[in-house]
Amino acid sequence: MKKLINDPGAVVEDALNGLVAAHPSLAVRDRVVYRAAGPRPGKVGLVSGGGSGHEPLHAGFVGHGMLDAACPGEVFTSPVPDQIVAATAAVDGGAGVLHVVKNYTGDVLNFEMAAELAEDVEIVSVLVNDDVAVQDSLYTAGRRGTGATVFVEKIAGALAEEGAPLAEVARVASEVNARSRSFGIALTSCTTPASGKPTFELPESDVELGVGIHGEPGRQRAPMASARELAALAMEAVHGDLPLEGDLLVMVNGMGGTPLMELYVVFAEVAAYVRGKGARVARSLVGNYVTSLDMQGFSVTVCRLDDTLTRLWDAPVETPGLRWGR
Amino acid sequence: MKKLINDPGAVVEDALNGLVAAHPSLAVRDRVVYRAAGPRPGKVGLVSGGGSGHEPLHAGFVGHGMLDAACPGEVFTSPVPDQIVAATAAVDGGAGVLHVVKNYTGDVLNFEMAAELAEDVEIVSVLVNDDVAVQDSLYTAGRRGTGATVFVEKIAGALAEEGAPLAEVARVASEVNARSRSFGIALTSCTTPASGKPTFELPESDVELGVGIHGEPGRQRAPMASARELAALAMEAVHGDLPLEGDLLVMVNGMGGTPLMELYVVFAEVAAYVRGKGARVARSLVGNYVTSLDMQGFSVTVCRLDDTLTRLWDAPVETPGLRWGR
Repeated sequence: MKKLINDPGAVVEDALNGLVAAHPSLAVRDRVVYRAAGPRPGKVGLVSGGGSGHEPLHAGFVGHGMLDAACPGEVFTSPVPDQIVAATAAVDGGAGVLHVVKNYTGDVLNFEMAAELAEDVEIVSVLVNDDVAVQDSLYTAGRRGTGATVFVEKIAGALAEEGAPLAEVARVASEVNARSRSFGIALTSCTTPASGKPTFELPESDVELGVGIHGEPGRQRAPMASARELAALAMEAVHGDLPLEGDLLVMVNGMGGTPLMELYVVFAEVAAYVRGKGARVARSLVGNYVTSLDMQGFSVTVCRLDDTLTRLWDAPVETPGLRWGR
Repeated sequence: MKKLINDPGAVVEDALNGLVAAHPSLAVRDRVVYRAAGPRPGKVGLVSGGGSGHEPLHAGFVGHGMLDAACPGEVFTSPVPDQIVAATAAVDGGAGVLHVVKNYTGDVLNFEMAAELAEDVEIVSVLVNDDVAVQDSLYTAGRRGTGATVFVEKIAGALAEEGAPLAEVARVASEVNARSRSFGIALTSCTTPASGKPTFELPESDVELGVGIHGEPGRQRAPMASARELAALAMEAVHGDLPLEGDLLVMVNGMGGTPLMELYVVFAEVAAYVRGKGARVARSLVGNYVTSLDMQGFSVTVCRLDDTLTRLWDAPVETPGLRWGR
């Protein structure tokens, strides 16, 4: 497996240097990515983080309208508490800090430890656990956190930008998670830079239904099928857990190695499925947002919108991974 | 090779249906993607097109501040003259139409034929031929057109949006091309949906220096090397053809199957190379913009900016592939 890296041990640092070189509005210090302009007095700070290898998540969502800081761990490895403590202290503008934590055991423990260590900062944590595929897994007790993280960070970030207090930002962040569901399907494994070998074996004839973003097992292996059939399998899992109703925010997310052309083919099928249930795709994202290195496959994430969430989704955002104006 | 498709023969149509389902500001008719709002009277219309499989190029660059229409061919196949004629007629707002044509023999011939067939519309064509890798190749007489197409479409699109006349839009489009150079390196082949097999063979030990966006041969095979060494090889090819000076717009483009983390590693090396030559990365793009299906690898495109080009690059844009506000 060939990779565009210098050294497997330096890949995270090298990539962060590239990120801030490409985006002068960001700064990196001690393995934390910040807005270069620093915290805004009176604004709730948003901090997230998790293993690297899921780019643009999380560091690519730092900027106006989303995160104030991101703590990237090594590839597929949780950030350490020191990173999170430093990020939390640095982004506190006096209104407290929200921790957005994907539900993986290591992330949860390290964010909890950091919250205990971070003195003199009011902190509320919101857990993202939108993946309906499995109840417990290799990395997680309960459901895993995946695509809804993007929705939580965007919508809570917009609310914080408006000056809402910490309790309200946290409430809406939790509400976005509660209204969101995800399901992923892998066509191939991913390969970490450190191992240089596929994380799991998947024959040419099969897909992994409900795969996790580190290549964790899902619900079952199934025969490779058409985009229509695979989209329906994913959407049935989502719809079975939270019925599709009303206006929806729908993301078809690439795992990193899947061509955009194919993601649009999947999106067309997802949109048809939604229409078939009498619901409406009111907002959407199609592309690579929560990746698993070079894995081929897709995940779909659905959030039931209301007027407030739609307004906050539409608010301006200026990050490497999501960017739009008024 | 597994692909998220329904039918190799329907992949372009299915993907276009997904594109317009995800982006209600776009419409598709007879295999042409338009702005749904139609042409703006008095504005120069911009039409581009080419083979599919390079998404988001070109259909993903239709929208305010870039193209008025895109004509996608079948995968790696030129659009037919009828598409181009229809697009040209539909986007003419009375101020004429600019054709942005990548230098591939089929594209050039079909755009020329369309320009002859499109009656009562003033048309100027600009040829993009920024790839320094090879002089002639499988698909092209002269140099191939690649990453600079994004720069030409963005900058000329912004100028057209300001109301500039056709001759001026065409002049600036040609200037952007003249100021731009590209070089690509493949780590793997791509696989078209129709064939289901890799387009070319590339051993695990080697890379293809100067690969074309359809997998055409480049300058030579070379041993796989570090990101630093590969970035230097690409930048030496660019710098040797057009010395790096002053403020630069730099794109590190993924071929479709390369993780974003790796593209940022490459960008860090490209930025260091630029600094080493005493030039400056004034603007940048890192991500998948001109892809080759699932190919792994990258290309780098550099444009020498001036104040006008920088201003037009920074102008608002609202397309699936590039999007930012004021």
